[in-house]
Order: sequence, then structure tokens, then C-alpha cells
Amino acid sequence: MLNVHLVAHTHDDVGWLKTVDQYFYGIQNDVQHAGVQYILDSVISSLLVEPTRRFIYVEIAFFSRWWHQQTNATQEVVRELVRQGRLEFANGGWVMNDEAATHYGAIIDQMTLGLRFLENTFGKDGRPRVAWHIDPFGHSREQASLFAQMGFDGFFFGRLDYQDKGLRKKKQEMEQVWRASASLKPPVADLFTSVLPNMYNPPEKLCWDTLCADKPFVEDPRSPEYNAKELVDYFLQLATAQQANGSRVNVLYSTPACYLWELNKANLTWSVKQDDFFPYADGPYKFWTGYFSSRPALKRYERLSYNFLQVCNQLEALAGPAANVGPYGSGDSAPLNEAMAVLQHHDAVSGTSRQHVADDYARQLAAGWGPCEVLLSNALARLSGSKEDFTYCRNLNISVCPLSQTSKSFQVIIYNPLGRKVDWMVRLPVSEHFFDVRDPNGTVVPSDVVINPSSDNSELLFSASVPALGFSVYSVTQVPGQSLHAHNRHPRSQKSWSRDLAIQNEHLRARFDPDTGLLVELENLDQNLLLPVRQAFYWYNASVGNSLSSQASGAYIFRPDRQKPLIVSHWAQTRVVKTPLVQEVHQNFSAWCSQVVRLYPGQRHLELEWTVGPIPVGDGWGKEVISRFDTVLDTKGLFYTDSNGREILERRRDYRPTWKLNQTEPVAGNYYPVNSRIYIRDGKTQLTVLTDRSQGGSSLKDGSVELMVHRRLLKDDGRGVGEPLLEGGLGLWVRGRHLVLLDKVSAAATRHRLQAEKELLAPQVVLAPGGGAPYHPGVAPLKQFSGLRRELPPSVHLLTLARWDRTLLLLRLEHQFAVGEGSGNWSSPVTVNLKDLFSAFTITDLQETTLAANQLRAGASRLKWTPATGPAPQPPPPRLDPAAITLQPMEIRTFLALVQWEELG
Amino acid sequence: MLNVHLVAHTHDDVGWLKTVDQYFYGIQNDVQHAGVQYILDSVISSLLVEPTRRFIYVEIAFFSRWWHQQTNATQEVVRELVRQGRLEFANGGWVMNDEAATHYGAIIDQMTLGLRFLENTFGKDGRPRVAWHIDPFGHSREQASLFAQMGFDGFFFGRLDYQDKGLRKKKQEMEQVWRASASLKPPVADLFTSVLPNMYNPPEKLCWDTLCADKPFVEDPRSPEYNAKELVDYFLQLATAQQANGSRVNVLYSTPACYLWELNKANLTWSVKQDDFFPYADGPYKFWTGYFSSRPALKRYERLSYNFLQVCNQLEALAGPAANVGPYGSGDSAPLNEAMAVLQHHDAVSGTSRQHVADDYARQLAAGWGPCEVLLSNALARLSGSKEDFTYCRNLNISVCPLSQTSKSFQVIIYNPLGRKVDWMVRLPVSEHFFDVRDPNGTVVPSDVVINPSSDNSELLFSASVPALGFSVYSVTQVPGQSLHAHNRHPRSQKSWSRDLAIQNEHLRARFDPDTGLLVELENLDQNLLLPVRQAFYWYNASVGNSLSSQASGAYIFRPDRQKPLIVSHWAQTRVVKTPLVQEVHQNFSAWCSQVVRLYPGQRHLELEWTVGPIPVGDGWGKEVISRFDTVLDTKGLFYTDSNGREILERRRDYRPTWKLNQTEPVAGNYYPVNSRIYIRDGKTQLTVLTDRSQGGSSLKDGSVELMVHRRLLKDDGRGVGEPLLEGGLGLWVRGRHLVLLDKVSAAATRHRLQAEKELLAPQVVLAPGGGAPYHPGVAPLKQFSGLRRELPPSVHLLTLARWDRTLLLLRLEHQFAVGEGSGNWSSPVTVNLKDLFSAFTITDLQETTLAANQLRAGASRLKWTPATGPAPQPPPPRLDPAAITLQPMEIRTFLALVQWEELG
Repeated sequence: MLNVHLVAHTHDDVGWLKTVDQYFYGIQNDVQHAGVQYILDSVISSLLVEPTRRFIYVEIAFFSRWWHQQTNATQEVVRELVRQGRLEFANGGWVMNDEAATHYGAIIDQMTLGLRFLENTFGKDGRPRVAWHIDPFGHSREQASLFAQMGFDGFFFGRLDYQDKGLRKKKQEMEQVWRASASLKPPVADLFTSVLPNMYNPPEKLCWDTLCADKPFVEDPRSPEYNAKELVDYFLQLATAQQANGSRVNVLYSTPACYLWELNKANLTWSVKQDDFFPYADGPYKFWTGYFSSRPALKRYERLSYNFLQVCNQLEALAGPAANVGPYGSGDSAPLNEAMAVLQHHDAVSGTSRQHVADDYARQLAAGWGPCEVLLSNALARLSGSKEDFTYCRNLNISVCPLSQTSKSFQVIIYNPLGRKVDWMVRLPVSEHFFDVRDPNGTVVPSDVVINPSSDNSELLFSASVPALGFSVYSVTQVPGQSLHAHNRHPRSQKSWSRDLAIQNEHLRARFDPDTGLLVELENLDQNLLLPVRQAFYWYNASVGNSLSSQASGAYIFRPDRQKPLIVSHWAQTRVVKTPLVQEVHQNFSAWCSQVVRLYPGQRHLELEWTVGPIPVGDGWGKEVISRFDTVLDTKGLFYTDSNGREILERRRDYRPTWKLNQTEPVAGNYYPVNSRIYIRDGKTQLTVLTDRSQGGSSLKDGSVELMVHRRLLKDDGRGVGEPLLEGGLGLWVRGRHLVLLDKVSAAATRHRLQAEKELLAPQVVLAPGGGAPYHPGVAPLKQFSGLRRELPPSVHLLTLARWDRTLLLLRLEHQFAVGEGSGNWSSPVTVNLKDLFSAFTITDLQETTLAANQLRAGASRLKWTPATGPAPQPPPPRLDPAAITLQPMEIRTFLALVQWEELG
Repeated sequence: MLNVHLVAHTHDDVGWLKTVDQYFYGIQNDVQHAGVQYILDSVISSLLVEPTRRFIYVEIAFFSRWWHQQTNATQEVVRELVRQGRLEFANGGWVMNDEAATHYGAIIDQMTLGLRFLENTFGKDGRPRVAWHIDPFGHSREQASLFAQMGFDGFFFGRLDYQDKGLRKKKQEMEQVWRASASLKPPVADLFTSVLPNMYNPPEKLCWDTLCADKPFVEDPRSPEYNAKELVDYFLQLATAQQANGSRVNVLYSTPACYLWELNKANLTWSVKQDDFFPYADGPYKFWTGYFSSRPALKRYERLSYNFLQVCNQLEALAGPAANVGPYGSGDSAPLNEAMAVLQHHDAVSGTSRQHVADDYARQLAAGWGPCEVLLSNALARLSGSKEDFTYCRNLNISVCPLSQTSKSFQVIIYNPLGRKVDWMVRLPVSEHFFDVRDPNGTVVPSDVVINPSSDNSELLFSASVPALGFSVYSVTQVPGQSLHAHNRHPRSQKSWSRDLAIQNEHLRARFDPDTGLLVELENLDQNLLLPVRQAFYWYNASVGNSLSSQASGAYIFRPDRQKPLIVSHWAQTRVVKTPLVQEVHQNFSAWCSQVVRLYPGQRHLELEWTVGPIPVGDGWGKEVISRFDTVLDTKGLFYTDSNGREILERRRDYRPTWKLNQTEPVAGNYYPVNSRIYIRDGKTQLTVLTDRSQGGSSLKDGSVELMVHRRLLKDDGRGVGEPLLEGGLGLWVRGRHLVLLDKVSAAATRHRLQAEKELLAPQVVLAPGGGAPYHPGVAPLKQFSGLRRELPPSVHLLTLARWDRTLLLLRLEHQFAVGEGSGNWSSPVTVNLKDLFSAFTITDLQETTLAANQLRAGASRLKWTPATGPAPQPPPPRLDPAAITLQPMEIRTFLALVQWEELG
């Protein structure tokens, strides 16, 4: 008997051609006929009609909204359907997240949000057993690893390289075990993975979706449209094509979980996949590698919001209920948490939505920041004991902050979300004066006011030191009477200045070609490494289709018209700023491309702050702008990119690990997602570039690394979005940072892991005019606070600290080094004592859960699949001793902690 | 309190852009997203969700099909919804019929079919109380009269002239009493009529149909799409705009019947409408008068099928159950009855469907003919007593009939569906021989074989005499040895023949201009009337839009580019045929336009058999071809057209009876539907033209009459059909007949009424090779049969004689003259004795019903409305005495007769 499992599902984009609300309510149905509320309404009534029917639902952002609008009676009906398994949830994240432009922390957060709704609403009955990513445009290994750690029985997806798919079909290898981590011991990150035969679509001729026009089933033989026999025959032919020998066919309404359960009973052995499914091409010349970089401003806003959400979560956890209700009103992390979850959708952070939808994503983030700012104010007032008039300068990236620019004195509160003390160079726009800056102890610290030679804006710089998971309050006072003699106001251009154009600190030296103004050399003074590194900006001319293929470059697809990019300028106009607190080379390449190369004292990386845009397209040429670093490193075709900001994958030019590639796009076909870092190395030296957002990157010749920083296109690429990626009338002005590290290979990971952590969870700067009333009358305010009684070891990343409910906190600890990666013992297992670790609360009980916190780890079980490499038995969960939480390399452990907050102040 | 009645409805075209089956099943949803089965499914579940919801359904062609596919459980649920009034039927015809191109007989049939389904399925609960024509493109007075006689409380429609509507809105006269007959005594044909404010659409901004994209109601104030308050305010503003003074608003789900019921209780007085709503224009230059003539071949096929269906119905009634099960298999009138009902749909016979849909309409008719042919064979064998091998020559119109063309002897059975004996010229294609033709008594009758000078086909002509509601069997035998010396084979063309080109019989003389070959004079020899009548073909150049309006001529809309038509040819090549049995002038105007002008002995009208097409459009000009008769009659701007083949309406050029017309289209704006006749007259003389199908017609100058016979267009007219009216690659070749009558005004109606009746229900010719076995062994066959024991009076038309069920017949008798119309006493009341009238059965019980036979007349009551002209009380129904059924002028009386069939043979 051949069982044919019919899986009825819907694929509801959480924003794409329409905004989330427009999809939910069915607004702008002329753009796309879709109203999720009606889908759910009609699914429920259809399920009620016929008890053998099944349906799966996926996107909890939509489902939870629909749920809250139902009557109690309908909710009861739905609960019963879920209980009976007739309505089953698959995946269960808030959204079906993108896998290329997402950071693992945000993926975990969004999955946690969705799965938590299901757990709260339906209990165990609503818990998804399978991961279901039928649309994302390529699949990351880290995603599979996370899904495995969330306890899924298996994973279904739709899109993979057409060559790969063709071979898999031929080799009957559409299902495999994916071993998704090089560090985690199997089967921890093993995930049974099934490639859907026809993407998210039903078989040809059987699409009765509202978007299709296939002929429905007509049973009445008197109708001229009668086709029942023909369709049944066709269906049987499709079904029996899946088996070697004919047998009877049993067709059932099913779900992916039910299918997996049945398949698992067959007790087969599966081949093992160890790499990932990037890049995705759906045909020759059709590489979906453009979206790695599309909408760089949104990608940065998302990453910045991740940072802010973690700060918000931490302060909510540290301050307890006082964070939510306090002198500044109702503080709430939920809106930003939900907005961030929405941003993980595979048309959101991916940059593949329509413009007005992208605008709405940004609006959602911005709307989420507000309640978090209230929460921060409540929490900071509570923790510091001072009800300051806190101000959040959201426009610091363009050096706008009214308080610092107009006040003669103000306070700077710097919150550090890391588990270790941090030193951070604070930069604030100020008026042209001298300022007196004092640390929490009242000690004057070095400060400087630097005038930006390009913009003439003046900024106050001082280095702040902030304790782990805590804050320091610095006081800034204008020095009266003394107007600024702009010692850096008109730095001489390099031409007239010196033949030796370089910046340097105690660790690093960067040298520039005095003729061209380009970076040409980097020297690690500590490790005595010197590497010629030429950095410049180039652009690819976006293809609008050619004789080989009509495929144009677009929001999804990257296709350069010629494989060789054009240089923006061979020559940069440069200005240099050198003060005790900063050394900068300002490079101006063109009206729309400039860069500041920067070194602060003590900094072990070179910071390249690039500003690109608005990209001119008046010449009719869409442009895809890259920053390229060329070195002499003999990299033998290899380079390395991170997977969702966590583990590193080796990439080889014009090569795929599991099949012989027929390369049609020598540039686009070698692009990979860079979520946080890319590096190249020879036997000795490693050049690492950290990014501040997801970008596409590659190494197209040995010794070279490139990252796509911005793109602006004049044609749609025919994948449905139906708009060229123009980003408004003039286009966008995008600013970002590349941090370049030059290290010995053996020392590299130690450096880039910690530096990337610091970038991801940067300190949050909050301003206040000062003079606030005491929070607890009569109790003096605190100028410095740490939420930890002791710092976490360097290999331990505090991935999550967040309020779960009235009495529980969600806590995730992560070993942030891979096996064999860290120098010294940083890749060794590390143990943390949670007892009395936190200063703000006491943990009275601790339970360990799976990664998304929707089930206890002890009770969780997954289907066991036998890999061809031999069985990998699931070890028993580690004993839970709060005093000794041990983390293996790359391990994340998730806890729900029952806490009691300390009486503060 | 202002009550706002929300009427939830759907408008389901029984074919338009898609075929009936495609709409029902939801096939070709890329053409139009519509699947009626799903509409009904979802309506039922929506009604079940909320008991205050109401829905009306209209098109029984769809509903009955859906019903038969439901489970018993669903049927029970639906019955309960109907019982509770939550699902209510409006109109209840098989389709929502067209009003311009339909014949009243077919309208009554299709309404009867739909209403009968409802009555059988739901009883009184399912009986519609209102007529509902929200889409037809203009409204006929006869339609309103029929609806009144069917017992409807009121009538709702959507489309009327934009000027009319504007004024009505201003004058608050959107609702009126329509006095829909000039003959029937009020309130028999009075119908309360309500114009819907926005056609079939909801108010602007409130369209949430799948075809619209108005923003749905968003109640969540946190949504950026929140609009609940704005929409409620807008709705209230719309509602209160309907009242003089503000009051509270009560909004309820309602139905049109419920609305009428409430309105009726207000006991208001209503103005009275006496004309009709033709032509319909939805803006300046936008007259929907093209569809009066669109698809003339389909329009003729429909009319011919009406004829055949009545024959089929009658023979089913006369032969009893033997018609359904007999030697030829299962005979069934239902498929043709249903197909004819479908053809009445306002995009079917109107010619406004897409081409493939028009093809499917024709297919449905053709499929309906088959079971009727079986029925005819069964019935004729039973009634004649001879199991002949009956043959039906469906292609006689193009002179194709294999049996008559190849057999040396055969029988011709002629069935006459009229209540009076008829003489009919039989024409059959034959081989080139002489034939011996004998009547039922074996007497040789005159016959002739005529060779068509245009086609060289030879046709046998003989005049058959057939008794009322019966048949005559004629025998045809080829005269052996004698080949035809084609005495008419090569008629001399008029040029070389005579200066006097004329044809004539004992009643009529038609003279042609010997130079041009055109008809120039008609003389009624009996009445001593001579009228110069010039007849010729012209064509309007179809507008493709101009500076006044972008409106193009199309399937719906007639808009000539210039108001003056171009003549097809000033000159006709003519050939003359004159034999004892026929005189014909064959006129050839062009490669695509010809005509035969014909007189048979004894015939009192001139027959013009035109052949037009395929209309060439290679010159880029769409063409709309007319036949125009120009006379010197001083008609003072007046002309007369029938309303659905029954009562006559006076038309006045550039004039509307109820408002001052601003005429924008001097041609198209004066076109009216001609279903069966158009005439002009001065004080003395009337020129009447009878048509064989519905056509558009007008009188654009005094003394002139024109009829549009064919049209072929290159542009779509933007009313949704989305196809130019090209009718296939080459276009269609269309043949039809105009019967021209010249009479004294006083005698005209007598003539045209009876002649039109004879055209509508022409004899059915059936062939057989002869030599069939006896039906009842030992009983000699009958060569002649009449279903009536005595003829009906000339003023009585046997409108319907059909089997209703196992024991009942449906019988409709009609007085076919209007008040003051007939000469002598033909417009007087007439009495028929039904007792022993029929020879084939005995009526054992008789019940009178309303017109559609869905309720007993005695028990029927309608809402009473007070016209401004004073109350018109409903008289008690006439006493029912089968021996004396009295008909008033234009009255139709409908009966269900319990019968017992005679043992025949």
C-alpha cells in the first residue's frame, strides 16, 4: 500500500506586496488577493464540515491576531480541532524567518515568541513537531541547528539550487539527515530534512488556490467540463511514480508531522548533509544572492533594534515589575519583541518586500522602540534611584541629539548589555565648546571635541567604562566661557600634508597611499603582522537581461552585467583628524561615496565607516556597490562566512561540496550571506571583516574580500515583488561600519568572536539633563550599577535575559566559541555558577528547556533517525546544577528561572 | 427611527466571460475569479454562524445544480434556513433573463422552470416575493407585466438611462408603480418598481466583494489600518442622507421582500410609469442598443429552439408517457427546456458573452434538441401508429438534408403547433428530378423543383395543409426516368429580361427598379394600397471612439462613427425565379450581402430572405449592417415596436415620454429592441416588418424603418466582456427573413398578429423513408392527426401545452390581441370551451394558477400599492368553468389540468 499524504496548508507572508495588516485584513486586494483572517475563518469552517480533513498553520503573527478577535465559542471550537489534530501547527514561529539575512539571536527570539503563544493557548496539543520553511530563498546550516535544538522532528523546505535539486531527484536524495553543527555533538544538531517536490506548490494541474486557475474537480459526467476520471488517473500516475513497484494507493488528509511519524517507522538509514543550501539559484544565471544586501538601511535598523531589544529585555529582567509600571508610564518590551519577530520574516529583513511594506516594517520597529524607551526609563530610574528626564537620541547615527547639542550640562547613562565590563568610546554631537566629563566617581576623564571635517559638526568624545550588565553615569558640563578653537576644524588635506598618510594606535597601524588616499597597508603591531591591504569601492552594473538570459538583477537576484566591477574612484579626497582620542582618515570618493577610517586608542581593529548613497541611477544603470579588500594572501579559492552570526562555514570559489557545479555566474554564483563576518587566510594570517548588518560577500580572487554595501536597481527581477529596488525617489543614503581585523590565524577567532559580540550588543547611551528627583526619597542615586556579581567568562555569551512572566525569567547562556576555534582554552567547556550571579534578583528555582523555551529539556524527545554515518544516540540531558552550568563549545542552554527581585535603593 | 436594510446577495451570471459550467465549478478563474458552488457553500456556512444574517439567491440554474450535489444533511440545513427566512430566493427564474432580446413565451418558460424547482423543493417557504433584475441592460414593459402576473410584490432593477436616473434621484422618484399593460385592467399588470441606488453594487467604499479592493473594516485601533470609526461615520452619513430629518438609525440584515413589506406598511401613494426603460444609456454617447442585434445567428437559433421546444412540449402532452419511453429510446423535453432557459440569460440571447461562451450556449441548445427529437419520434410513432425511421434535418436552413437529397421516396411529416389549421410551403433539398407529392389522402398535390439561381441547389416545393395541433403525412416519390430539365436553372438577369421587374400573387405585388434591382414599390391588391418602398442594405461604421467620447461600438453598445450609414451597394445583381409555386427576385448586393424577395401563392406578406456575412473587416472598419425601408409615409417621428413579442409601444424619435431628453446619439439613441415586429404608419397606411429573431430597429426619418441584421466589430466597448464582437476568424454568415406587410392601419394588427404567431410556431418538418412497422400491430397508421377537436378562435393563442408531471398538463391560453387592436371583434373577450377540446386526452380536473404556475390563482395575493392615479382594487379571480374560459384582450390564463390520455390506435 502506497500512502499519499495530502497536506493542506497556506503560505501567509508576514508582509511582502502588502503590509502585515493589509494581508491580515485583506486590504489592497487589488495588489494581491489575500486576507489572512478569511483564510482562517474558512479553514475552521471547512474542518468542521468533514472530520477527516486536516490543516496546518504556520505563521503565529497572523494566527495569534486572528485568535484574539474570535469569540470564546470559536476559540473553544478551535481548541478542540487542535486537540484532535485536525488543525496542526507547523514551525510555529511568529513568522517563517529568512535564513540569509537573519541573526541567530533574532531567529531564536521570534521562534520563542510564536511557540510560546501556541504553548500558552493550546498546551502540548499545539506544539509543532516539524519545522516548515517552504519559501525562504536558500537555507542556512545554523537554522537547521537551531531547529534541531528546538526539538523538531524534522524540517521541510522548498527552495534549493536547481542543479542540486535535479541531482537529488535523480539520486532519490530529497530527504537526508542534516548535521548542522561542526561543534555540537551529534545528534544535538542533526535534523531530518525533506525537500518538498514542488516548492510550496501542489503538483502541476492540481493547484486550486485562489492564485491559480487549474481546473477544479468536476464529477458530473454530464458536464462538458467533466474531468474526474482524467484527474484521478493523473493523480494516481503522480503517486505511483514515487514507487518502484506498483501497489494500491491510499490517499489521506495528513500533516507533515504525521507523514514524518509514518516515515520514521520505516526505520531507514539516511545520508548526511554537512554544508548548507546557499546560494540558491532557480535556474542558470538566476542566483538569489542580491537579497543578501537589499535594503541595507532596513537591515541595519533591524540589527540595531536587536541590540536595543536585548537591552530592553535585560533591564526589564533586572528591574522587575518596576520596569513595566513606573514614573514614565507603561513600559513594555512586547511591541519591540513582536516587531523584531516580524522583521525576521523572509520578505522583511531580506529586503524583498515592496517599498511601502519596507516602510511599514521600519514603522513597526520605531513603534516598538517607544514602549521600550519608557521601560528603560522606568528601569534606569529604579536601578539608579533617580527619576531623571531620560532622553533617547535615536538619530545619533547622523549626529543629531538636541539635548547634548543645546545643554550646558547633562548626564550620559551608558548601559552595557554584555556579561563583561566594556570600554566604549562615547560620541555625542555638541555645540562648539570644551566640556568637562566626569566618571561615576566624579573623576574627570579625558575628552575631546572633534569637528568632522566633512560636515563641520562637532562631537564630544570620551571613553566610558561600564560594568557587566550594568550602567555608568557620566556627567558632562560645558566649560564656561571657553569657545572651541577648532584645532581640527580644517585639517589639511593629505596632499599638502605629508607623504606618510597613516593612522595608528598602540595595537594597529593603517597606512594610506598618499597619492590616491586609499588604504594600502595594515599592521598588527602586537603580533608583528604587516599586510598590504588595498581597499576601495566598486560597483557592478546591474544586468537588465542579456542574450544568455533575460534575468535582471533585482531585489532577490544579483546579476552583474559584466563580471568585473567598475571602481567608484581611483582616488579619494582625504582629510585627516588626529586627536588624543581618535585618529581618522576621511576619504571622499565621489558625491555619493565616502568613508572614514578610524582608530581609537586601545582598539585592535580598524574601523571603516562608509557612507554610500543615494546611488545615482540617472545614467540608466542600476548599481550594486561593494567595498573590496585586496591582499596578497594566498587563499587557494577559500574564504569563510558565518552562518546567521554563529558558526563559520568554509566557502570555495566555483564549488559546491555535494555536487559538481556548473557555474553560470562567476560573481553572483559565488556570493554568500555574511551576517556578521567574512574572512580569508593563508597558513599564517587572517584578515577578518566584521559587518554591522547582513550583507552579501565573497572572495572572487585569492586574497580578496568584498562586501556589497548598497544596491539600487531599475528593473524588477521577476520574482513577484514587481517593483525595482529603487528605495524611493532619490534612493537612500546608507552608513555602516566594517571592522577589519588582522591576526594570526590561531588568534583570530578569539578576537573576532569577542569583537562581534561587542558590536552586536553595543552599549545603550541614554541622556538626561540631570537633577532628577530620587526614586526612593532619601536614598542617594547610584552612578554605577552591575547586574552581575561577577563577570562571565569570555567564552560565555549572555544570549537572553528577559522577563518571561510575573515570576520567571528567560535566561540563555551560550558558549560563543566553536570547537578548535579559540586560542588558549576558550574553546573548552566552560562552567558558570548561576547561584548569586545576578545582583538584582535571586534565582529560587531553575528549569532547563529546549532552545525556544516551549518544553522542558528533560521531557523533550525527538524522532530518532539513523544517519548513514552510524547511529548517534541522544545523550541524556546534563544534570541541572545551578551552581555549575557547563557549556560545550557552541552550546546554548536555555533556562526558565524563578526569581525574587532584590529590594533596591 | 430610520431602518437601513442591508441586502446581502450575489450576482451569478449564467454564462458571460465563462460558460455556465465554468462559473459553477470555478473553472478558468484566471479569466474571472468566480465559482458559484463555493459561493453557495460559503453562504450557507456564514448563515449558520450568525442567526441574524440573511442572504438572497436568484439564479436557479446554479442553485438547483448545487442543491443536487449536496448531502441530505446539508439539504436539511438549507431547508431550515429557507424556512426561517434566512436564505430567501428572489426572482427565482432559472436565470435573470435579458429583457431586450427575449420573447415573452421563453421568459415565462424560464421563470416557470426556476420557480417550479423552488416550489418542489421548499414549498411556499421558497417562493420568491420579489422580482430582481439587477443587471439587465434596460427594462421592458412586458417584463414588468409578466412579473405582475406571476404574483410578485415588487420589482428591483439596477440599470436605467443616466438622465432618467439623475432626475429620479432629484425628484425622489426611484420607486413607482409601473402600469405595464395598456390592455390588462389595473392592477393586473401593475408592479411596484424600485430602482437600486448603485446598480448591483454596494455604496461606494463599501464593496468587499472578491472583485473589489475596498478597505475592509478594521476594528483594532492599534492597527495602522484602523478605519472603523471613519467607516461607521461614512455609513451613517449615507444612511441619513436618505431622510429629510435626522433620526436614529437601525441597521438590519434584510431582504428585498422584507424591505417591501415594511415599505408597504407605510401606505404611501406612488406615481405611475407607463412606458418602458429602453434604450439604456450609462452616459452620453453610451447607448446599450448594440446588443439588440449582437450575435444574430445565436438569436435566431434561440428563437428556432423556442419553436422546437413548444413542438416537443406539445407532443409530449399529446402522446402522454409514450413520448418519454418508446421505440426510439428515452425522449425528454427537459434538456431543451433548461437550455432554452439558460439562453434567456442576459448575456446569452443578448449576444454579450465571450465567444467561447456563445459557442457553449449553442452547444447546450443543440444538446437539448437530441432528446426532444427522440421524444418527437416516440410521440409521432405513437400518434401516427407507425414506427418510422424519423429523420430530423437540422440544416434545412442551408438546404442540406441527406434523406430528401438521396432518396427516391420518402415521407414528410409536418407537425403544426398552432391551434388552427395551417398551410405551409414545404421546401426540401432534393436531387434534380421531378417528384410526385401526395397528401394524406393520397391525392397528388402541386409541387415544383426549383433550382436556386445563386447556389444551383434544387429544392422541392409543395404546399402542405396541417390541422390544428396535429400533423399531416405527405408522401414524396421521385418520378422515375425523368431528369429535371432545369426550367429555372438559368433565369435571365433582369437587365436582359424586362423593364418590368416584379413579383406578384393574388394579394400582393412587389416591383423592383429594373436599373438598380432594388425593391421600390409594394401593392396590397386586396386593399388597393400602393406604397413606394425602397429597400436597401446599409452599414454604419462602428465608432472606435472620437473626440466627443472614447466610447466604441461593441457587443453591448451601438455607436456609429457617423450618423449616416453607407449603402452596401446602390445596385443589385438580380435573377428572377417564377414558378407556379413561388416567385423570387434574387438580389446580390456584394460578396457578403444578398437577398431573395419571395412570394408564395396565397401569401399576404412579402418575404425578404437576407443573407449577410461574413462581414469583412479587413479595411479596419467594424460594420453594423441594416436593412432599411424608405417610404413616403408621413409618420411624424413616430414608430412602433413590440415589447418581447407581445404588446406594442409607441416610439418617438429623440424623445422620452417621462423626461426631456438630451440626445447625444441621433442614431443609437433612437434604437429600440424589435423582438418580432416594427411598424410605421400615417393616418391610413401601415408598413409592418416582422422579424424572425430579435433585432435592433428604428425609424430615423419619417417614413423610414431600419433593422440591424448583423454586426461585426473590432473593438471591445469596455463593459467587461473584453472581446471585440468578431465572431471567430472569418465572422459568421447569417441568414434571416423579414416579412413585410402593407395594410390599412385598421386591418394591420389582425394580419401581423396572426402572421407573427405563424412565424413563431412554424410547423416542424420531420422526414422518414417510409415503410415503418405499425406501432400497434394490426392497426393501420394515421396520415393525419389533430390534437384538437375544434380549432381555437383566431384571437386565442395556445401559449403552452406541456407535460407537468405524470398526470398533469400545463396549459396556457392567451388572447393575442390588444384592446382596440383587432379588426372586427378580434379584440373582444373570447371564450374557449376546454371540455373535450383535446382529442388526445380528457381533462378531468382543472386548476388555474398564476402565470408561472407556482401558485394557485385563487390563493395568490400581492401587496397592494396605491398609485397616484387612484386605487385599483384587485378583482376577484374569474370563476373557473372549464367549459367557458374567457380571455380578455392580452390576457394569459394558466392552468394545471389533470388529464387522462386516450387509448390511441
